[in-house]
Amino acid sequence: MNREESLAGYKGLALKILKDMDAEIGDLIRIVKGGQAYEGILIPRSEYGDDKHIVIKLRSGYNIGVRLTPDTKVEKIGRGEKPAFVAPPMPEQKQALPKVSIISTGGTIASRVDYRTGAVRPALSAGDLYSVVPELADIARIDAQILFSLYSENITPVHWAEMAKTVAEKIAEGVEGVVIAHGTDTMGYSAAALSFALQNLPVPVIFVGSQRSADRPSSDAATNLTGAVLAAARAPFAEVAVAMHETTSDTSIVLHRGTRVRKCHTSRRDAFKSINAQPLARVEENRITMLAEDYPKRDPTRKLVVKSDFCDKVALVKFYPGIDPAVIDWYVDKGYKAVVLEGTGLGHVAKSLFEPIKKAVDKGVLVAMASQCIWGRVNMNVYDTGRDLLALGVIPLEDMLAETATVKLMWIFAQTSSMEEAKQLLKTNIAGEFSTRSLYTVEENKP
Amino acid sequence: MNREESLAGYKGLALKILKDMDAEIGDLIRIVKGGQAYEGILIPRSEYGDDKHIVIKLRSGYNIGVRLTPDTKVEKIGRGEKPAFVAPPMPEQKQALPKVSIISTGGTIASRVDYRTGAVRPALSAGDLYSVVPELADIARIDAQILFSLYSENITPVHWAEMAKTVAEKIAEGVEGVVIAHGTDTMGYSAAALSFALQNLPVPVIFVGSQRSADRPSSDAATNLTGAVLAAARAPFAEVAVAMHETTSDTSIVLHRGTRVRKCHTSRRDAFKSINAQPLARVEENRITMLAEDYPKRDPTRKLVVKSDFCDKVALVKFYPGIDPAVIDWYVDKGYKAVVLEGTGLGHVAKSLFEPIKKAVDKGVLVAMASQCIWGRVNMNVYDTGRDLLALGVIPLEDMLAETATVKLMWIFAQTSSMEEAKQLLKTNIAGEFSTRSLYTVEENKP
Repeated sequence: MNREESLAGYKGLALKILKDMDAEIGDLIRIVKGGQAYEGILIPRSEYGDDKHIVIKLRSGYNIGVRLTPDTKVEKIGRGEKPAFVAPPMPEQKQALPKVSIISTGGTIASRVDYRTGAVRPALSAGDLYSVVPELADIARIDAQILFSLYSENITPVHWAEMAKTVAEKIAEGVEGVVIAHGTDTMGYSAAALSFALQNLPVPVIFVGSQRSADRPSSDAATNLTGAVLAAARAPFAEVAVAMHETTSDTSIVLHRGTRVRKCHTSRRDAFKSINAQPLARVEENRITMLAEDYPKRDPTRKLVVKSDFCDKVALVKFYPGIDPAVIDWYVDKGYKAVVLEGTGLGHVAKSLFEPIKKAVDKGVLVAMASQCIWGRVNMNVYDTGRDLLALGVIPLEDMLAETATVKLMWIFAQTSSMEEAKQLLKTNIAGEFSTRSLYTVEENKP
Repeated sequence: MNREESLAGYKGLALKILKDMDAEIGDLIRIVKGGQAYEGILIPRSEYGDDKHIVIKLRSGYNIGVRLTPDTKVEKIGRGEKPAFVAPPMPEQKQALPKVSIISTGGTIASRVDYRTGAVRPALSAGDLYSVVPELADIARIDAQILFSLYSENITPVHWAEMAKTVAEKIAEGVEGVVIAHGTDTMGYSAAALSFALQNLPVPVIFVGSQRSADRPSSDAATNLTGAVLAAARAPFAEVAVAMHETTSDTSIVLHRGTRVRKCHTSRRDAFKSINAQPLARVEENRITMLAEDYPKRDPTRKLVVKSDFCDKVALVKFYPGIDPAVIDWYVDKGYKAVVLEGTGLGHVAKSLFEPIKKAVDKGVLVAMASQCIWGRVNMNVYDTGRDLLALGVIPLEDMLAETATVKLMWIFAQTSSMEEAKQLLKTNIAGEFSTRSLYTVEENKP
C-alpha cells in the first residue's frame, strides 16, 4: 500500500497536512481548533469529499469532520494497530437443534466493523456469527450466506425478488426458519415486500437489523440476532416478521408483522413500531410469547407459493399545502400503473388535485389513499373532500401504512394487468396489512 | 325550494327512488339490504357522485353510502324537522377580562352542524361561540371573525400570508392574544408557517381545531376552544402554538410549539403530538403550567415583525425503494428553489438519486434532508451514504420535521433570493424548529 492509498479520499490541503506528518488511515490523530480538542482515529474520506476536512472516529464511535482553518492544529499522537481478526474455532453443531438459515443483505447487523477505522465490511460466515454471538450455538444449527452487501437505502424491488427466491430455496432445503439480516432504513419496506411475495409460508421468516454498530457498547446487534434466530427456530407462527428491541433496554425483543412495521426513530434501539396493530410476539429470556391472536401456524408440510415479482411503476406521493398538482400528471404520462397518495387526516388532498386525479383514473391509473398521520384509519365518508375523492375513483386504504400500500401495489401490478383484478387484490387482506372496521359497517361510494 | 333542489346531488336511479317516495334531504330514511337495516337522515350527495348510492347520516354521526341493488328496500320513515337555530342573547362582556380575537379559517371547530343533515356551515360570530361554549364569557372578551371557510386541505401558502396579516391587525388593535380556528388536517403546517411569518410576537397566537364535530357526543370542540382562549388570554409565552387534547379524555389540553407539532392520528382526540420536543405548556382545570423551559415571554410592548410571504417553488419528496430519480430533475426543470428529501433513517437516499441531486445543487437548487422516521435527528456523518450526500451539498435538517422544513424553505425563499443567505436562514433556529445536538459537537462536511 503506498502513501496515497493509505490516505484514501484525502486531497489538496488535507492530504498535504496528513502527508507532512506521515499519517496513515488508522493512526490516532489530535485536532485542536477554537479551544476545542478532538482525538480519534483517522478514517478515509468519501470520493465526493472536499479538501478542507479531516475525518476522525471518536472514542464514542461517532465520526466527525473537522474543517481546516488557519488556526487548526493537527498532530499524530499514535500509530494505528494493524487489525488481527481471527475467528474462534466453530462450535460443535448440536444435531438435535433446529436448523436456521441466515441470509445477509447488508446493513449494520451483518457487518464486522474494522475497529481501527470504523470501516464496515460484510462478515457473515457462520463462524463470524458464532464469534460475535456465541449463544447462537445453543439455539440452532446455523447456515449463513451473504446475498448482498448493501446499505438498505440501496435495496430496490429487484432485490426483494432475489431475497424471496433465496428464502424459498432455503425453505426447500428444509430449514425450520429463515433470518434475513438487513439494514434498518428500509427494512419495513422489504418485510412488507416478502410478506406478499412469500405466500402460504410453512415456517417463519424473520428480518433483523441493528441500530448501533457492533463496535459501540450500546449495540443492539447481538440481542436482536439472538431473538431473531430464536423466533426462526421455535416461533409458532409462519409469517414474515421483524425482530427488534421492544424498549431502549436489552430485556425484550418484539416481533412485528412485516406489513405493519415502521421505523419511527432515526437512532433509538426501539425504533421499530407496529402501526395500527399489536406486535405478533415478544421474546424475553429465551421464551416466545404470542401477542397477536390471529396468525397462520407453523406447519412444515405447507407448500410455499412464491410470487416474487414487483412492478416499478408505482409512485408514493406525499401531499403538502402548495404541492404542484402536475406531479400526478407527470407519473401518469410516464406510464405509471398506480399512485399512492399520502393524504391528510381521514384521507384528503386539496381540490387542486381533483382534476389530475380524475385524469389519472380516466387513463386507467389506480389511485389509492393512505394518511400521512400514520396512525388511524382513512375514512372518506365523513367530509365532502373524502366523498368527492371516492366519487372520482380513489380507493381508500383503510388502516394500511402508505409504505406497505406502495409495496403491495408494486406486487399487485406484477401479478396482473387487469385493473379489476388489481382493485380486488388491493381490497383483499393478503398478509395482515389492514384490518376492517370493527365499529360500524360502511359500504364505500364507488363511481 | 323545488323537489330537485331538495334532493341535491342525487341523479338517475337514486333520484327516481327518492322522488317516488316523496323524500327530501333531512327526512328519516330506512334502507334494508342483505339482511342489514340502516336508519338515518338523508343527506346531499357530492356533485361527483354516481346514481347508485343513497347517503344517510346514522345516529352515531357517521355517514354511510348504501349501494342500490335489486334487493335493496328504501323507505321514508319520518319527515325532517326544519332547523330552528336561535342564538341565545350575548352575555354581558366583562370589562376586566383580557381581550381575545378569534379568527376562523374553517374546519370542524369553526362550524355549526345542521343537526338535520349533517351539513356543516361556518358559524363564528361571538354570539355563536358563546352559545356553544358559554364558559368563554368568563375567560375573555371575545371578538370573532370569519377569514375563510375552508377545509384545511385546501389551505395554501397564500392563505398563510392572509392569516399572518389578519393576526397582525388584531395585535395592532391591542388584543391580549389571538386564537385561529383551523381544520386539523394541515393545522401543523399552518402553525409552522405563522411561526416563521410572525416574528418578535408580543402575545400568544393559538391554533385550535377539533377532531370530532360538535354534533357528536365525543366532540372535543368545546374543551379545545376553552383551552385555546385561556392560553391566548393568559399564557406567559408569546409564540405560535397549537391547543389540542393531551389524551383521549377531556381533562387536559396541551399547547404544542407551532414548528414542532404533527397530526399523528386520523381520528383520535389526542392526535397532535410535539415531535422531538416537550410541549410548551398544559392547560388543566383552567390553570396553565409551562412545560418548556425556554420560551419568549409575553410582552405587549414588543414590536411585531410580519414577514408573511411564502414561495411556492419548494418541493417535499418522500423517498421509497424504487423511487424514480427523475422526479428530482422534474422539480429542477420547473424552476424549484428547494427540495426537501424525506429520506430514510439518519438521512439517506439511494445512490440512484445522487446524480439528480448533484445536478440540482449545481443548478442552484437547495437540497435538504429530513427523516421519514419522524422521531430523532438526521446524522449524515455516520455512514458513507450520509457523508456522500453531505459532500454533494445536501443540507441536514437536524431534528426538524420534514413538514416544518418545507414550510420554512417556502418562507425563506420569499425573504431572499441569495443561496448563501437562504442556507444561513435554514441553519438558524428561528422559531424553535430544531435543537442542536446536545451530546457531541460535529462540524459538518461541506463541499
